[in-house]
Amino acid sequence: MAQQVNPPRGMRDFLPADKARRERVLGVIRSTYRAHGFDEIETPVVEDSDRLHAGLGGDNEKLAFGILKRGIGTEELHAARDVLDVVDLGLRFDLTVPLARFYATHRAELPAVFRAIQIAPVWRAERPQKGRYRQFVQCDIDIVGESGVQAEAELLLASLDALDALGLEGGSIRVNDRRLLTAMLDVFGFAAEEHEGVLITIDKLDKIGPEGVVAELAERGASAAAVEAFRAFLLRPQTREFLPFGERQIRKGLPAGLESPAIADLVAIGEAVAAARGAESGDAPLVFDPFLVRGMGYYTGPILELAHPSVPYSLGGGGRYDGMIGRFLGQSVPATGFSLGFERLVELVALAEEGAADAVALVHDADAPLPALLALKAEAVATGARVRLVARPRNVKPLLDALAAEGFTRFAFVPAAPVPTFADLELRPLA
Amino acid sequence: MAQQVNPPRGMRDFLPADKARRERVLGVIRSTYRAHGFDEIETPVVEDSDRLHAGLGGDNEKLAFGILKRGIGTEELHAARDVLDVVDLGLRFDLTVPLARFYATHRAELPAVFRAIQIAPVWRAERPQKGRYRQFVQCDIDIVGESGVQAEAELLLASLDALDALGLEGGSIRVNDRRLLTAMLDVFGFAAEEHEGVLITIDKLDKIGPEGVVAELAERGASAAAVEAFRAFLLRPQTREFLPFGERQIRKGLPAGLESPAIADLVAIGEAVAAARGAESGDAPLVFDPFLVRGMGYYTGPILELAHPSVPYSLGGGGRYDGMIGRFLGQSVPATGFSLGFERLVELVALAEEGAADAVALVHDADAPLPALLALKAEAVATGARVRLVARPRNVKPLLDALAAEGFTRFAFVPAAPVPTFADLELRPLA
Repeated sequence: MAQQVNPPRGMRDFLPADKARRERVLGVIRSTYRAHGFDEIETPVVEDSDRLHAGLGGDNEKLAFGILKRGIGTEELHAARDVLDVVDLGLRFDLTVPLARFYATHRAELPAVFRAIQIAPVWRAERPQKGRYRQFVQCDIDIVGESGVQAEAELLLASLDALDALGLEGGSIRVNDRRLLTAMLDVFGFAAEEHEGVLITIDKLDKIGPEGVVAELAERGASAAAVEAFRAFLLRPQTREFLPFGERQIRKGLPAGLESPAIADLVAIGEAVAAARGAESGDAPLVFDPFLVRGMGYYTGPILELAHPSVPYSLGGGGRYDGMIGRFLGQSVPATGFSLGFERLVELVALAEEGAADAVALVHDADAPLPALLALKAEAVATGARVRLVARPRNVKPLLDALAAEGFTRFAFVPAAPVPTFADLELRPLA
Repeated sequence: MAQQVNPPRGMRDFLPADKARRERVLGVIRSTYRAHGFDEIETPVVEDSDRLHAGLGGDNEKLAFGILKRGIGTEELHAARDVLDVVDLGLRFDLTVPLARFYATHRAELPAVFRAIQIAPVWRAERPQKGRYRQFVQCDIDIVGESGVQAEAELLLASLDALDALGLEGGSIRVNDRRLLTAMLDVFGFAAEEHEGVLITIDKLDKIGPEGVVAELAERGASAAAVEAFRAFLLRPQTREFLPFGERQIRKGLPAGLESPAIADLVAIGEAVAAARGAESGDAPLVFDPFLVRGMGYYTGPILELAHPSVPYSLGGGGRYDGMIGRFLGQSVPATGFSLGFERLVELVALAEEGAADAVALVHDADAPLPALLALKAEAVATGARVRLVARPRNVKPLLDALAAEGFTRFAFVPAAPVPTFADLELRPLA
């Protein structure tokens, strides 16, 4: 008895129906992004270990799969003073580090403002769990070389269009800005060196609630007066008053008196998105969330997260990360990016089979002569149909059911003597 | 001064123009194969080391990139008795081992005759050299579960159609059969245990010539009488007489008196291919080559290689490898496959940009108001065009040249006050 054979732990195979669905969803995303003027690039799935572990990947660096140096023997293993002595490459854990490396390699060949699409798998050695995989696809767009909020507006418009094109109209964007987070913590009196830790805790607000956040801040030993001021703000009575997106909504969400150029930037993003989507100013599908952090410590400006009424979790996000893309170049380059949660989207989207693709199964007698059979198939393919030859089994019902389930739309029985031409076949619909 | 930053050794980045071309070529191949009734699947890029090193990969097994076990420390490195003690996964070096593993995992969910498409990268730690890369894309089709030559005929017809669709009409196929190779070596008196080595040498015929082959066989210490008999056959006077593909051509290429069921199989493949391509029997684009070996020792039946008059090298190949796909299942499963040499094809093919895709560059004044600008872009995208916003530089000529080189077809200058609607823009062609 053969033992169970599986793909590697935490990784998946895709059978034909799943693979076709994934490719269709990727096709829609890709063509929407291309229409918006973004250009697709590709980098190798591995990068040099030094690059992956240069501090650009945050916690994900720890999850990189390392590749053993080639030609190494037990002698080198025994002499290793560190695991990284025997590893020189690693599978990428995101598409941002490779973009930074790509930009450093090719900047001279790229336009001054470079709009990149990257649609590709990444790998993380996470503990496998439901809905979390060790290989998964990321769909990133990034705009490199544009420091103004036009970049964020273009990212959001392209992403909302992609969502619409997938049949998921009604998406909205939670926005915040790293500069507002910093200013808010300053207002409450957190010391600059406390900020990173405090933000890690605030990032858990959705999970552990306001009281949980306050408790964890206290546990962290953050300045007691600052924690108390923050607590009062977090738990302040909220009016349920609806505010259109704009300066008033933003100021209402912030501690009184806080001033930052980020406010005008977010307002400008909202106005641009509203205008481009044909909405009244204020009707942009944006919501200001003063507690939105989105993990990555490298954000420097607007932070964006995509929501949809059909699901309680985010469908993507991103933000501005000036300074990081230029790291391998040794200079500062403005950049902002947005990543669609492809693995979540593909579960949500029920895209119809492309067009009215005709798919014909030719169910032939087993002894039909091969030349006539393949000439018949060629005729059928030439009509633009997708065509499969299947030898007729004794019991034909399960076969026809299986063909219908696979997306075949029509079938015909093909006798052996003589094999008819395609025009003479009696084609019947498959349920 | 920043140092040179490159992708990992032997691997490539793809800039937008290259990436777009690769995707277009892949799209043509994918849709042709789908039309012929093949189904695309996907497996993870890594497989368990045990699978990769189970003897199915021939010499390629030595070229696998190994992945270090996670959570390992120097202690485990120092205790390792073998390099494979610290490695549990590897990057796949071909798509055949993953297909065998996939088939063992999912056989119950697949049709009795399964026609698979796999279009995906593989990795080999080869010494980098011109035209040979450590990450490259393979395009494989395989038919699993069909023992008759219908399978080979379908593989060839789909592959020739793909070549036609890429604008490379006139492809032809060199064919041989592993059974004929074995029978031929028997006729000359090589002992069964010598066959593998002798075939490795014969495989070099194109590179080292007939005398080189004979010399290497002698060096190998192969039976002298057998080498002499083979030499006489290899160097026999050849008539330049044209023979249509069929039994006469095949028998003419073989030692007198050799009999094998493979002869009838190759004839049947030729007849089926001719009929399906609307040619007279005998006009199939097939050529019998009694010395075609194609490396892999796992072939068991017909061996196929794709040639095109425009290039001296092969553009793909494959063959029957019964027994191998079932290895992880512990049972024998008939299978045959064909692999297009994608990296070579993509260099050869000059596919036009898809359709007459309209691509519009909106060259705007730097101080144009963002909402109006993005509303204009949205209008343009809605016409079906690919659209890019570019701030107008002082010197506009190099920008327009660069846009034309990138495939943009039209442009317009967009003034700041007021920003016109798309309908009111004066669009001009880009050279």
